[in-house]
Amino acid sequence: MLFSNLKLNNNESIYIQIKNHISSMIDKGLISNNSKLPSTRELSQLLNVSRNSVVLAYEELKSEGIIYSISGKGTFATSQNTVLNIPWNINWDTLENDYSKIANNMDIVKSEIPWRSDLISFKSISPNGELFDMEELKKSFLNRISIEGHKILNYGYAKGYKPLIDYLLEYMNTKGVDTSNKDILITNGFTEGLDLLLSSFVNKGDYIICENPTHNTAIKIFKALGLNIIGININKDGIDFNSLENTLSSLKNKKNVKVKFSYITPSYHNPTGIVMSPENRYRFYNLMKKYNIAIIEDGFNEELLYSSSHIFPMCSLDNLSNGVIYIGSFSKILFPGLRIGWILCDKNIIYKLESVKRCKTIHVSFLDQGILYDYLSNGGFEKYVKKIRKFYGDKFNFAYKCINKYIPNEYILGDGGLHIFIKLKNINSRLLLSKCHEKGVIFMPGDVFYIDNNGYDTLRLGFSRLSFDDIKKGIKIIGETIKELAVEI
Amino acid sequence: MLFSNLKLNNNESIYIQIKNHISSMIDKGLISNNSKLPSTRELSQLLNVSRNSVVLAYEELKSEGIIYSISGKGTFATSQNTVLNIPWNINWDTLENDYSKIANNMDIVKSEIPWRSDLISFKSISPNGELFDMEELKKSFLNRISIEGHKILNYGYAKGYKPLIDYLLEYMNTKGVDTSNKDILITNGFTEGLDLLLSSFVNKGDYIICENPTHNTAIKIFKALGLNIIGININKDGIDFNSLENTLSSLKNKKNVKVKFSYITPSYHNPTGIVMSPENRYRFYNLMKKYNIAIIEDGFNEELLYSSSHIFPMCSLDNLSNGVIYIGSFSKILFPGLRIGWILCDKNIIYKLESVKRCKTIHVSFLDQGILYDYLSNGGFEKYVKKIRKFYGDKFNFAYKCINKYIPNEYILGDGGLHIFIKLKNINSRLLLSKCHEKGVIFMPGDVFYIDNNGYDTLRLGFSRLSFDDIKKGIKIIGETIKELAVEI
Repeated sequence: MLFSNLKLNNNESIYIQIKNHISSMIDKGLISNNSKLPSTRELSQLLNVSRNSVVLAYEELKSEGIIYSISGKGTFATSQNTVLNIPWNINWDTLENDYSKIANNMDIVKSEIPWRSDLISFKSISPNGELFDMEELKKSFLNRISIEGHKILNYGYAKGYKPLIDYLLEYMNTKGVDTSNKDILITNGFTEGLDLLLSSFVNKGDYIICENPTHNTAIKIFKALGLNIIGININKDGIDFNSLENTLSSLKNKKNVKVKFSYITPSYHNPTGIVMSPENRYRFYNLMKKYNIAIIEDGFNEELLYSSSHIFPMCSLDNLSNGVIYIGSFSKILFPGLRIGWILCDKNIIYKLESVKRCKTIHVSFLDQGILYDYLSNGGFEKYVKKIRKFYGDKFNFAYKCINKYIPNEYILGDGGLHIFIKLKNINSRLLLSKCHEKGVIFMPGDVFYIDNNGYDTLRLGFSRLSFDDIKKGIKIIGETIKELAVEI
Repeated sequence: MLFSNLKLNNNESIYIQIKNHISSMIDKGLISNNSKLPSTRELSQLLNVSRNSVVLAYEELKSEGIIYSISGKGTFATSQNTVLNIPWNINWDTLENDYSKIANNMDIVKSEIPWRSDLISFKSISPNGELFDMEELKKSFLNRISIEGHKILNYGYAKGYKPLIDYLLEYMNTKGVDTSNKDILITNGFTEGLDLLLSSFVNKGDYIICENPTHNTAIKIFKALGLNIIGININKDGIDFNSLENTLSSLKNKKNVKVKFSYITPSYHNPTGIVMSPENRYRFYNLMKKYNIAIIEDGFNEELLYSSSHIFPMCSLDNLSNGVIYIGSFSKILFPGLRIGWILCDKNIIYKLESVKRCKTIHVSFLDQGILYDYLSNGGFEKYVKKIRKFYGDKFNFAYKCINKYIPNEYILGDGGLHIFIKLKNINSRLLLSKCHEKGVIFMPGDVFYIDNNGYDTLRLGFSRLSFDDIKKGIKIIGETIKELAVEI
């Protein structure tokens, strides 16, 4: 291609025309520094000229230092291009929009203390990978590949891998959800589910109701999309329903306030760990129904409920209706690296979301969906859940006892799951964190979960990846540090 | 949990209190239809009452038809709940925003003729899966799992899997890109790359320049984001540079016009199949530099270039600068089902995009990234590319000859790749499609690639998945149908 516009004429020596052409290409940066030139034989064939002409051209270029040869390797360009030497510098900071600015400012990964192997870190609530059954996973991969062949590696459907969708519909059925007018879209984890939904139904300036505190990634997404957030306070007993009802009835009269959604995490709420009682689920659902505010239900860690047959997701109250959008994900407890979640809601909404998905990521990896489906349908998940309920249950109980014993607190929240929330007695948890960090212990300061400037005296302890010894050791250090701080005050 | 708020008193028989509680739970929908109740033994232990009381309560509920038993299986709730019988119906159509509306209206999957196995379909430009080396893939999976263990299944980094990033930096190096001030973010294919970039840097009403025609998904994304599109016409010789220069100089004086980006596909342009010459790449780059309009370079199918050592991506002209954002993807030719692409650009931009990625999909499947890395680094890709260049090259040449022979045309465009573009002599390609469909042949009407209402007399033929026989048969049918239509006119 580089020689396609070289039209040789009879007015000049062939070798000079070739030499000038190459030299100008290098000048213009079309042949970059140290890139390889065609061999003299190749080029002579390409241009249909004698090989001698090319050899001669190359020799002159070499003598001028424009190209060089390495014996046995070939001939290469040397000079930096001249025209492009003036750099093109775009000021990307001024081009960045609000979405990106907020996403960057609120990205806690960029501000938090980096993990080090010698720290006892209570920050993570990701699952303990040592519990993953790698042999089952390998079997699932090989089995799925042998069933689907190369098809599973080619383009698939935006909605997802059909067998996985059917499995999940059935699975939601066992939770009391009548799926006859529902459908499922597979997403890249919970986060994409929330992004797809909000991208499709909200506009800048709309309102959203959520628990305060709540999942920090959700807050970040709300703010990045320019939503106004109405927080419902959570206290020891969970949602403050009186304040919620007052808020809702006062909003009803405000003309310019469009409350599009409420966002709620009924099981092992992040960060408080509270499991909402069936009565409160019912109450919340009916309140939202009364005010016609669609519910986004975050199915977070629901699978860890000890007796899942007796507690239902809120979407099971919505069987004949279309008011609840349930976002589920196994990846909070199983294979987070695969990034697979799902949205379950009314068929017509899924039909819309399918097209939005095609605008954003086309579809989720069919290989991953296939592997997960195989793993789930062969009973691997049930075995796994049984195992981790015990594993995390024991850790929870142990950590809870340690906190009770060693950490002076206003109250401790948590009904199980992978984390515990602590309200301190007027101790700044950021200050506490920096003191604990010096002693080799870190945790998640609670303020990141608040939509306002509250929570300065709260913290979340995740224990899923820590040993019993480290849990005890870490909690003792936090407790001692609090006592030191209390004395200072 | 369902029984946690049942406080037994001494004023009433225990069994009546239990019965009323269950009955009210079912009424409220907290126990859904056909869901299982605890066994009498379980419940008596839970409530710390005699088993007889529970048996009695269950008997009465059964006699009232509120619950029923299946021998050996257990006891279940029957009644539909009464309170929730009034459905909650949200009108989601009125809640949908413009983004979703445009994404839905422009979703060609929803309007196009569905694929059937008895059709000869020239619609697809996805790779032929039979060429995938499944044994190599299996090896890569098993090898990566044995190296990384469970870590590759847990949370990873937004930027991507480090070995894959390093591999791709090196790979871009071989294309003449100096990566010293560049970085890479792994994305869910090209589409997410484009979405992340635009989501971070454009605002509704901004302008973007692109080839006309161009990739239909890109047009859809631009329109869904509310961008104004400035099309540069493409003719037989590629971009019309005169009209581009005129447009740019006239825009310069318009105060309210913010041209944020140009979007360009230099290799095997979709749909025309044109490969931009090095001279034109250079010319385009310098024009954009002159007007300070950042370039989004779509690396589409670049890997199919026969002599990739002699033609460079536009980003290799940008070595000392930050004006080009290159979006690459192997998935157009290899394992599209995995959805892996990458953005290569200035480090500071990647740093911003990382946070935006965390707002949208957290990260791309680490398992898939690991498998792909293993496959690439073991030389699987080089072998594969060699094989497919020959395979698709032969098909291209054959299809091109057939078109030349059988299809009356104004001109045919295509320099290789997986598709050929045809401009007909005033024949409406939608009409042609419907006639061909009756005869068992379908293709992609060209109008979907135009930002205006042009291209009504163009079509794109993809041949990657068709046999030589079907290519010939299908092209003959299209040719015959054109002749019939021409007679009718």
